[in-house]
Amino acid sequence: MLERLKQEVLEANLDLPKYGLVTFTWGNVSGIDRDSGLVVIKPSGVPYDKLKAEDLVVVDLEGNKVEGELKPSSDTPTHLVLYKAFPHIGGIVHTHSPWATSWAQAGKGIPALGTTHADYFYGEIPVTRAMTRAEIESAYELETGNVIVETFKDKDPMMIPSVLVNSHAPFNWGKDPHEAVHNAVVLEEVAKMALRAYQLNPDIQPMDQALLDKHFLRKHGANAYYGQTK
Amino acid sequence: MLERLKQEVLEANLDLPKYGLVTFTWGNVSGIDRDSGLVVIKPSGVPYDKLKAEDLVVVDLEGNKVEGELKPSSDTPTHLVLYKAFPHIGGIVHTHSPWATSWAQAGKGIPALGTTHADYFYGEIPVTRAMTRAEIESAYELETGNVIVETFKDKDPMMIPSVLVNSHAPFNWGKDPHEAVHNAVVLEEVAKMALRAYQLNPDIQPMDQALLDKHFLRKHGANAYYGQTK
Amino acid sequence: MLERLKQEVLEANLDLPKYGLVTFTWGNVSGIDRDSGLVVIKPSGVPYDKLKAEDLVVVDLEGNKVEGELKPSSDTPTHLVLYKAFPHIGGIVHTHSPWATSWAQAGKGIPALGTTHADYFYGEIPVTRAMTRAEIESAYELETGNVIVETFKDKDPMMIPSVLVNSHAPFNWGKDPHEAVHNAVVLEEVAKMALRAYQLNPDIQPMDQALLDKHFLRKHGANAYYGQTK
Amino acid sequence: MLERLKQEVLEANLDLPKYGLVTFTWGNVSGIDRDSGLVVIKPSGVPYDKLKAEDLVVVDLEGNKVEGELKPSSDTPTHLVLYKAFPHIGGIVHTHSPWATSWAQAGKGIPALGTTHADYFYGEIPVTRAMTRAEIESAYELETGNVIVETFKDKDPMMIPSVLVNSHAPFNWGKDPHEAVHNAVVLEEVAKMALRAYQLNPDIQPMDQALLDKHFLRKHGANAYYGQTK
Repeated sequence: MLERLKQEVLEANLDLPKYGLVTFTWGNVSGIDRDSGLVVIKPSGVPYDKLKAEDLVVVDLEGNKVEGELKPSSDTPTHLVLYKAFPHIGGIVHTHSPWATSWAQAGKGIPALGTTHADYFYGEIPVTRAMTRAEIESAYELETGNVIVETFKDKDPMMIPSVLVNSHAPFNWGKDPHEAVHNAVVLEEVAKMALRAYQLNPDIQPMDQALLDKHFLRKHGANAYYGQTK
Repeated sequence: MLERLKQEVLEANLDLPKYGLVTFTWGNVSGIDRDSGLVVIKPSGVPYDKLKAEDLVVVDLEGNKVEGELKPSSDTPTHLVLYKAFPHIGGIVHTHSPWATSWAQAGKGIPALGTTHADYFYGEIPVTRAMTRAEIESAYELETGNVIVETFKDKDPMMIPSVLVNSHAPFNWGKDPHEAVHNAVVLEEVAKMALRAYQLNPDIQPMDQALLDKHFLRKHGANAYYGQTK
Repeated sequence: MLERLKQEVLEANLDLPKYGLVTFTWGNVSGIDRDSGLVVIKPSGVPYDKLKAEDLVVVDLEGNKVEGELKPSSDTPTHLVLYKAFPHIGGIVHTHSPWATSWAQAGKGIPALGTTHADYFYGEIPVTRAMTRAEIESAYELETGNVIVETFKDKDPMMIPSVLVNSHAPFNWGKDPHEAVHNAVVLEEVAKMALRAYQLNPDIQPMDQALLDKHFLRKHGANAYYGQTK
Repeated sequence: MLERLKQEVLEANLDLPKYGLVTFTWGNVSGIDRDSGLVVIKPSGVPYDKLKAEDLVVVDLEGNKVEGELKPSSDTPTHLVLYKAFPHIGGIVHTHSPWATSWAQAGKGIPALGTTHADYFYGEIPVTRAMTRAEIESAYELETGNVIVETFKDKDPMMIPSVLVNSHAPFNWGKDPHEAVHNAVVLEEVAKMALRAYQLNPDIQPMDQALLDKHFLRKHGANAYYGQTK
């Protein structure tokens, strides 16, 4: 079942080592079929160089396994919360990519400092609040999803497709698994350049709102003019 | 038309990923045929690994498309302003190369701190002033060119072949597309080493003018003695 | 003798350059056969690209050579002290991997700042005290082992499988040579991200104890649920 | 003539891009035949991927060309001063390797902070004083050599085989061209780790003298015991 989506999810998972986003098995990509409400996700702890389409696990939005021999990623409950809360996303990726993870460990969101950021993220990439002991000690992975959703209560996840989970690492999403990984690559570049920009000038302010608007909107929305007309 | 220039522009574009200057499609190279006043430039949003000579777009200096199926780079108006203002340049490259972009985001020019810099840039690599809202909201890419030209009103673009656009990223140029990319590689090295030098010693001053003269002039101008006699 | 262990130790040594942990011959891996009390270790100063299983040296726990043409690693006495003091470890790796070595040179342990750390290390990765002149000038490599053991007098080496030797570099271990190298790779990632996190926020505190517990224990011990059931 | 030395010098030059020490043509290696007093050196400005043994230039210690079609490296006078002043060296390498060059641009020597440093350098790697305008404007490359020699007036170049030329970049040497490049690789690692160690702890002091002695002398001199007996 869902062979086409499985192929997309497989390729998106294999892109993680290709783009240098993962060490060992520290990452996972999922995709959702919105018609059936079924999610295809990487199995837990399987190395990328051994991963095959048939290893992927199919679960429903309540976390019940529908197909697959292996256990799904331990982060599956986080993915499911996001799919339920963000109805327009079609793929999710979680990594411990080192630049973004450094920001997450520092407990700081990444302010929009330049047009590379603005081309993809319409404002600061937020960091979640620290989780409570109760959240950590109960349904931890589900609560991780909840704290992300809480962080986006006044934000549009389609305009800021990444988040930094405090003391942990980023989650990214997109309209499909491929775009989610694309955004994860961008996040890593943006995280790197923002850290270095602060090293050069600790007093820099977020970029001008007009410039942020210009760059985000020339690539997104009805009046976009970057790229070729599809 | 302009098959030879197209081949040069193609190769220069393909050098961007080869030298690690670009992520995805974040960069473009153009070249100009000064006799006809025609510019060959990368199409917008096309991945480098799929780029062919026939995809390149030919425009005149007013931005009218003369040949090509695809839309030219969204940065084309910036390139055209530079070709008109800097009559000796033959190629332009724009990237979001991470070290140089970090300086651009910090809003700081790169002072000449050592002979690597002096071998290519005769003084500080400047950063443009922040653009006004009016400039951003009107003909943004054209105004980006104008603010670069304004930054060089008392500088010789052939002696400082790069600029950092504030909150954005670098533009580089040269006598032809190949040299423009060469300068973009040097800029990235110089940006990296300057940041680290300041980390080691926040109080360093720009290098001695005599040493700057010596290195720049042993590689450039009538008395150059570096390399083989052509 | 010990052909299977030699093969493991060979592969673990060859993983050092593969994972970018070593320059030249700056590293070595050993493995122990607990039944016979014999240790297989890399010979001193042999380049990785020339290393063969038959070059490996077999020594007993007192350092007597039991098999092999070549001299064992000059760090052999350190390995032997650790095998004697830490009865559950089966492999040891020493490198000068650059991020971890920077912490060792700074004389600082690496606090647990995020879940990447917590997935592998149950608390701060400690740095040893500076060695005394007497220790350095007598049986230096043996005393290096002793100062590591002293550092772990109130710690469980199976829960914190790495140490930073002051002014020197890390030692790592695991249940076998393969796991020891795995931990050395993790240490390097953790050391890199912790340094950058402090650059972003010099005031960060170690992560919440509940989060540390959660991540370490979901991968280790009786209630682990990460990965596939073996 | 000197075919064997040419082969060594060729291989040592080709090792520069292999070890990531050079961008474009920013580096050169020479070797000396002490019997004849002749020096083999890279020609100026020739890319490494086109360099052949027959392109190498032979000069005498006064800088007269003895063999070769091409112009020798513009840094040749610096090399010759060093060969004359340091009678035990057999090879010299100059690069603009980025970590070491950052220290040179910062005008700071690299203190001995750990055993990686101590394994190769018996104390701080010094930086030269700033050159005078008279030195820069006269025989610049020769005076660069002189200021290096001045820096070593109370140091043994065989125990500290690298120097940072102020506002410029490193020179390294060794008993032959191969060892000189080896030392250049080590310098780059040491420069990287020292910068990061200071970022972690701005107050670190140079390492203990006993530890420096121990590590340098276990690899060098009559009582060395690292590596295999030759």
